[in-house]
Amino acid sequence: MKKGKKAVSLLSGGIDSAVASAIAKKAGYLIYGLSFDYGQTHRFELSSAKKLAKHLGFANHIIFPLPLKQFGASALLGKGRIPKGRSKDEMQSGIPNSYVPARNLVFLAIGSAYAESIAADAVVIGAHTLDYSGYPDCRPEFMDAFQKAVNLGTKAGVEKRLIKIWAPLINMSKVEIIKTGLELGLDFSLTLSCYDPDEKGRACGECDSCVIRKKAFQDIGKRDPGIYR
Amino acid sequence: MKKGKKAVSLLSGGIDSAVASAIAKKAGYLIYGLSFDYGQTHRFELSSAKKLAKHLGFANHIIFPLPLKQFGASALLGKGRIPKGRSKDEMQSGIPNSYVPARNLVFLAIGSAYAESIAADAVVIGAHTLDYSGYPDCRPEFMDAFQKAVNLGTKAGVEKRLIKIWAPLINMSKVEIIKTGLELGLDFSLTLSCYDPDEKGRACGECDSCVIRKKAFQDIGKRDPGIYR
Repeated sequence: MKKGKKAVSLLSGGIDSAVASAIAKKAGYLIYGLSFDYGQTHRFELSSAKKLAKHLGFANHIIFPLPLKQFGASALLGKGRIPKGRSKDEMQSGIPNSYVPARNLVFLAIGSAYAESIAADAVVIGAHTLDYSGYPDCRPEFMDAFQKAVNLGTKAGVEKRLIKIWAPLINMSKVEIIKTGLELGLDFSLTLSCYDPDEKGRACGECDSCVIRKKAFQDIGKRDPGIYR
Repeated sequence: MKKGKKAVSLLSGGIDSAVASAIAKKAGYLIYGLSFDYGQTHRFELSSAKKLAKHLGFANHIIFPLPLKQFGASALLGKGRIPKGRSKDEMQSGIPNSYVPARNLVFLAIGSAYAESIAADAVVIGAHTLDYSGYPDCRPEFMDAFQKAVNLGTKAGVEKRLIKIWAPLINMSKVEIIKTGLELGLDFSLTLSCYDPDEKGRACGECDSCVIRKKAFQDIGKRDPGIYR
């Protein structure tokens, strides 16, 4: 069954998971994409994920339904208003309101189930913490703890076939992430970073995610090919 | 919002998760049941889970769809034939073929997301290892590793509101589990343990799970109220 290295890549449609996937591809992995339909406030994220999976030549791409909405209002992305025009200091104060309960724990667990099912060697996630550090489930110490849980809680782990939990961006800044993506030929026009796109899928340019993206492209001195309203 | 202690209980329809739920109820928790529709080879498991949730007076009971089938044949329960009439020694050799890739990792992760969404104090799981030890994701060391991942990867953990991963049966034998359930007034006629029930939901009496159950009731000297064909 096994031919070459395989990796499951958690693909959101944003910049980070696209660059993480491009890094895994460059490293020689055959990529099996996994995106979650978990009640995001907009559907454009999944549409970007589909375009990216094609662009990056994934071996497969699964959109996995995950009805977290059933758990109540606090399980939802987009609780309350999306803050606009915040400074970096404001972004860095506390856990962002875009935090979704145990999201990466759930995504990585299902990614590990997929990886074990297809005898893949890694689960790739675009998590990083440098630009703003509010998400507990993007920290290296969480990744390490999750790796131990996978090693102990799967047949693969018991049989010493490591499923590596790989967060290749974990110590990169947004500038480094975008530079890496450009070097790898990633088409950033396919990515969508905005928390609040309009009905045509155009980014707002003012939410935390848009502000960080725009600033990073400015710092590099490259045009951001993202579509803004 | 918070009134008294809440626990999310992972409920399969079998004996173990029913007794674990009864223990949590006795300990004063309000129980929020969570069952997974993950492509079990039979539907009677979920029907038993529904009856048990009612019998045990759960505050809520969610059946969560989890299409693991998409990950390929090896993600499915019931790969190959279900072994019948095996001895205890045979059952204890290696990881059983009823192992589902990363199942408890996924179940506990989604349970933790539910727990965090409703500000619950615990996630209860009926895992235990004494009777047969083949499942890696039932071991205490896995539970400990998963607890650390939850503590590090959730807002609740960062804010020191512990979501306890609680496996109250972890060191119990099947005899002790059934005795405990009987003491707590659990109606075992509602549980279904069989891996291979017939079209009317009657147990086979010969698969590993039936053999272990029947032997435990015999050892206690009580009639097994389960329905066999």
